Amino acid sequence: MTCAVLSIGTELTRGELVNSNAAWLFASLTDLGFDVSLGATVDDDEPRILRELERLAQTSRVIVCTGGLGPTTDDITTLAVANLLGVSLERDEASLEHIRRRLAKFGRTLTETNAKQADFPKGAEILANPVGTAPGFSVRIGTALAFFMPGVPREMKRMFEEQVVPRIRDLAPNDSYQIRLRTFGLPESTVGERLDGVAQAFPGITIGYRAHFPEIEVKVLARGATQAAARDLCERATLEVKQRLSDVIYGEADDTFAGVTGRLLRKKEYTLAVAESCTGGLVGHLLTREPGASDFLLVDVVTYANSAKTRLLGIDEEVIRGHGAVSSEVACAMAEGVKRVSGADVSLSLTGIAGPSGGSPEKPVGTVFIAVAGPSGVKVVERHFPGDRHQIQTLAAYVGLNLVRQMCGAPG
Amino acid sequence: MTCAVLSIGTELTRGELVNSNAAWLFASLTDLGFDVSLGATVDDDEPRILRELERLAQTSRVIVCTGGLGPTTDDITTLAVANLLGVSLERDEASLEHIRRRLAKFGRTLTETNAKQADFPKGAEILANPVGTAPGFSVRIGTALAFFMPGVPREMKRMFEEQVVPRIRDLAPNDSYQIRLRTFGLPESTVGERLDGVAQAFPGITIGYRAHFPEIEVKVLARGATQAAARDLCERATLEVKQRLSDVIYGEADDTFAGVTGRLLRKKEYTLAVAESCTGGLVGHLLTREPGASDFLLVDVVTYANSAKTRLLGIDEEVIRGHGAVSSEVACAMAEGVKRVSGADVSLSLTGIAGPSGGSPEKPVGTVFIAVAGPSGVKVVERHFPGDRHQIQTLAAYVGLNLVRQMCGAPG
Repeated sequence: MTCAVLSIGTELTRGELVNSNAAWLFASLTDLGFDVSLGATVDDDEPRILRELERLAQTSRVIVCTGGLGPTTDDITTLAVANLLGVSLERDEASLEHIRRRLAKFGRTLTETNAKQADFPKGAEILANPVGTAPGFSVRIGTALAFFMPGVPREMKRMFEEQVVPRIRDLAPNDSYQIRLRTFGLPESTVGERLDGVAQAFPGITIGYRAHFPEIEVKVLARGATQAAARDLCERATLEVKQRLSDVIYGEADDTFAGVTGRLLRKKEYTLAVAESCTGGLVGHLLTREPGASDFLLVDVVTYANSAKTRLLGIDEEVIRGHGAVSSEVACAMAEGVKRVSGADVSLSLTGIAGPSGGSPEKPVGTVFIAVAGPSGVKVVERHFPGDRHQIQTLAAYVGLNLVRQMCGAPG
Repeated sequence: MTCAVLSIGTELTRGELVNSNAAWLFASLTDLGFDVSLGATVDDDEPRILRELERLAQTSRVIVCTGGLGPTTDDITTLAVANLLGVSLERDEASLEHIRRRLAKFGRTLTETNAKQADFPKGAEILANPVGTAPGFSVRIGTALAFFMPGVPREMKRMFEEQVVPRIRDLAPNDSYQIRLRTFGLPESTVGERLDGVAQAFPGITIGYRAHFPEIEVKVLARGATQAAARDLCERATLEVKQRLSDVIYGEADDTFAGVTGRLLRKKEYTLAVAESCTGGLVGHLLTREPGASDFLLVDVVTYANSAKTRLLGIDEEVIRGHGAVSSEVACAMAEGVKRVSGADVSLSLTGIAGPSGGSPEKPVGTVFIAVAGPSGVKVVERHFPGDRHQIQTLAAYVGLNLVRQMCGAPG
């Protein structure tokens, strides 16, 4: 059973709006167990809307459409559908009353422009819109069941859940199960090589990858005779995947790297202090983007200027002068300094050259020194990261958090 | 001349990713003067990729595709194109060398999995990828010119601008001109109301809006007999728009809010120190995401724990105990403290409750105190932001940067 999503609107094909509706519908249909293989976006142009609907109806059993149901002249979806089916538009009195009452609530009276939203292709099933003016509708196009909803996300989502889901739920095969694993530390190609042969060893398994810099997400998707069989297959294959990637898997599903690091710190009852330079607050931002960082994070001092390193962290000016601000000596002094001034159990420091300028032959752009100080002393690493400023900052932050994870007992 | 955008990837049709690439390409092609009427999204399935390409080639003169050029087995775009054209894949030695060198930079050696990314349909024109492994390519499909680029946004955008634009620019009707203005401080509907009637007063002008939280971008698009006429019309309409939105426009085109703030600080030759709490390093991250922040930013102290506020900024424990860490008194003490310990000319502090927990009836989630200290004293504001944790943090950071802008003489 395949499904397609059709998004209608010139604001979409002009790029004035990111099509988050489509992603939401794709995800919802996938969660229901459908195999969604196709999406289309088309401007408010009748011949093109017709052509897209005809085409999608040939390959999909369910078509979910959004947009073009508004009151203005550029909203022509309803008329296009009537023309496609060769039927006339008919005004629905109940919908007209709904629109009239809704407008009255906002102190407005019904005009012919609004009344147009109560017109539907003859024979269409009407889909209530409890949170907006325009109702949706459903028709058959050939063997396909097509649903038309407003483009306003809030109205669309409510209508989909209340009106569309009950009408299509039983059509989904419901024979798949997926586990998502999150990794950091290997490039996509190496992750792929490590998993060579897993799909072959477990028939019914598909392995998917998604790069979200600097992470690679591994998706283990199983299809089986029943969902229970799919789940069992998925779990067995995932065991194999976990063994092959044990050193780089840090979490599952919606885990984040900083969130998992925080969890480990909490478990160990360690407090953390951070001193950043080239990463400019990114480590702190990653850690505090999620709730609960106040359980362990005492302070993040972004000492951009050398004077700040001296004044706030008590680093000897001579050390900075002698070794340069980007050096293992200064990284260590920053980690020890922020640990001392904050009283934290563990501290992390990063100093480097994120570029684009500031590099030298000895210390090119991408050079970063990262130090971790903990109960068992200080560890410092020198790394040379490739990429642009944003990538260097991100990689440095991740490697720093990874050192904290390891200090808390994580593998890798 | 019509254009189509094809997005390839099962992660898209499963809704795991919002297709921001397509919106970016739609907007870029529109900006170039193309009439973009159609977009399609398809999973990593060869027959379906073939069918979409064939279909789009019948109605579009330019097809821009993203995704499916990665090294793993689910990346099959290149092979699909070769099969569509009935040609074999040929390995390109120059691309292979590029990939080899790029991998070497990361300390890795070339494997057959990577080498696959140097295979192209025979006769294809290769599109360089200076910021990633996979080059793109271009072929003719019937009368259509088709471009294939990686799905990684950073690589795709660079390749589009450097490789695709020069190849298609002359195909656009070239009768339009657009100016983009960046605003912060008003909701989209209010921005729209303020600009009521501008399009009518300047025939040929279309006003578009793009919300990118918490900013609203206003696009003034002009079409004319020639591009010079369009430009003249656009500039006249933009003057009117600027007058109506003078208090909320902070920049144009690709300006960023933090970048503009930094520019003002540099112009005034002010150094800046930041003390954050609820924003957790976001202000520092926004300021240092771009090069050159070291010109003015001395330090950003993220004092998450009260002890850090006392130990690093010298805030009296009594003040925190008496007024609470989230109070105008503590915000002022943080701003004054970080200014004193860093020796900066201007300082910014933020303390608040980003949620989801930690709120109280007196100080609900979203309460944030923001203080700015400068040559002419301290200013503190209390704000109550709506939304979730991420939105509260972002709004607080923007309002804080805005206070710094105003201290440097910006309007608003």
